[in-house]
Amino acid sequence: MTGTATGSATLPKPLDEGLAAVERAMLKVTDSQVDVLRDASRHILGAGGKRIRPRLLLLSYMALGGLELNRVARPAAAIELMHTASVVHDDINDHGIMRRGRPSVNAAWGRTFALLTGDYLFTAVYELMAPFGELNVDLAQAATALVEGETLQATAVKDNNFSRDVYMRVIALKTAALFRAAGAIGAKLAGASKSEVHALAEFGFNLGLAFQIVDDILDLVGDEDRLGKTSGIDRDQGRGVAVALGADKGNGSGSPPDPLEAIKRKMLEGDTTDMARGHANLLISSAIDSLGALEETPAKQALVELAREVINRDR
Amino acid sequence: MTGTATGSATLPKPLDEGLAAVERAMLKVTDSQVDVLRDASRHILGAGGKRIRPRLLLLSYMALGGLELNRVARPAAAIELMHTASVVHDDINDHGIMRRGRPSVNAAWGRTFALLTGDYLFTAVYELMAPFGELNVDLAQAATALVEGETLQATAVKDNNFSRDVYMRVIALKTAALFRAAGAIGAKLAGASKSEVHALAEFGFNLGLAFQIVDDILDLVGDEDRLGKTSGIDRDQGRGVAVALGADKGNGSGSPPDPLEAIKRKMLEGDTTDMARGHANLLISSAIDSLGALEETPAKQALVELAREVINRDR
Repeated sequence: MTGTATGSATLPKPLDEGLAAVERAMLKVTDSQVDVLRDASRHILGAGGKRIRPRLLLLSYMALGGLELNRVARPAAAIELMHTASVVHDDINDHGIMRRGRPSVNAAWGRTFALLTGDYLFTAVYELMAPFGELNVDLAQAATALVEGETLQATAVKDNNFSRDVYMRVIALKTAALFRAAGAIGAKLAGASKSEVHALAEFGFNLGLAFQIVDDILDLVGDEDRLGKTSGIDRDQGRGVAVALGADKGNGSGSPPDPLEAIKRKMLEGDTTDMARGHANLLISSAIDSLGALEETPAKQALVELAREVINRDR
Repeated sequence: MTGTATGSATLPKPLDEGLAAVERAMLKVTDSQVDVLRDASRHILGAGGKRIRPRLLLLSYMALGGLELNRVARPAAAIELMHTASVVHDDINDHGIMRRGRPSVNAAWGRTFALLTGDYLFTAVYELMAPFGELNVDLAQAATALVEGETLQATAVKDNNFSRDVYMRVIALKTAALFRAAGAIGAKLAGASKSEVHALAEFGFNLGLAFQIVDDILDLVGDEDRLGKTSGIDRDQGRGVAVALGADKGNGSGSPPDPLEAIKRKMLEGDTTDMARGHANLLISSAIDSLGALEETPAKQALVELAREVINRDR
């Protein structure tokens, strides 16, 4: 464990250095001998993104006394690349043409190369994690959950049964499992106790649920320019919080017939975006509660701030 | 190391038991809670396939004295699943509608679920291998090579520059690297020396090159019913040994214009299928030579037979 808290002024530098090391690790592992894989990887990675998963991993590590930010850059990079791989494949299945303010890999390189770039990023995750022994179990489970969540979502859209229960199961699998792994792996790398690992895993899990709910609300009501990605995809595809919770702002276009019908039916239940935001707020409180037993440190404070940022973000 | 050779009669049973354990491991790790992932995985795995990669891993292990076939079933299953994942994604990019005598996952479930099933099989590889420490480095490198090889191939087709050099580089990456990993991982699991690991890695690598060349010849001249997959894809897509070595049997249909033009140009060089087969024969001899220093055991003999089977197969 770190010593006593010395004020948040001591935090930003090591975190920023850790995040810079994460960027370097991601670029290094994707420096393929095959031009299109290197170029497409740099295209999507160079567009930035919130980097919330590596921040969660690094801060979990620091909050439990970890000091070697360079050592944990690789697992943190792996977690971000896992997310990035799924995003590249998502944009194929969803026909998303914008991502992080740039054309999606699918839009810029076409479907074949987007599929291969996503595969390549998956194998880059594997390369980064290979030396990390047992931690591979955590990330492998999260990776499987992620794909299961995406598939469950696609199945629910196809079968037109996107209920609240299915929605919660989908976001637990496709988003919160990876957030949980980020918290758990960060804690384990710091040599944390079992209960500390559990606390950070729970923090990550609830943060991930809240993050996805807010993401889905933004997808529904957000402004495309500010989001930097094609918005309304969830509603058009008949999934997400919009469908699950029955809210629709009524500006849908190009929606396939069945999901739209489902949305309209559920609209009768009223505007539930506020309800969804209330649920996200509860999850954030619950996440912050998980940190109760942790020593007060700048890193713990930064985790709390991260949680608040998730609920207050507008993109 | 095993004792002296006791005749090939002692071999089949442990190998068969090992392969049965591999099947069980593959089914267990793909027993998803999400129906479509479980069903599509069983569809492609249940169709059989040659299982040459797990056989190579198990025999490499046995040839170096390994006795616990159950212990190595997981890595052997992981290698077969890695191959299977790439096959599922290949069938999306190539519009392959038959695979192993059944409709491809793409044909049966559509593109979205085929993409997700391939991703799922990748994560199953990761789950299977997670407990195997340093061996993950070997498989991760092979996985990256595989995707790089597929991408290099797609790039060469797109740019219409599928030369012999590019062809050899493609098959080294997309096929031989995984065969090399199978040999090396089998040897390492048996606690082999560095030079023994090197010998099995080299055996696998050359076997993989020969396997792919023969595969490409069969794709060119083979009978669709016997192959159990859509044949002529390589020629139609302007790639493979057909294009690289300039041979074409002249029964192409539905070929896109540019690759076909390239094939026709190269046809002027004459029928080079025999040349390709000659090259594959040399690679097989070279593979068998790599085993020279190994003790004569039934498992070593089975590796030699496996190499001969690769060159003599007609499907």
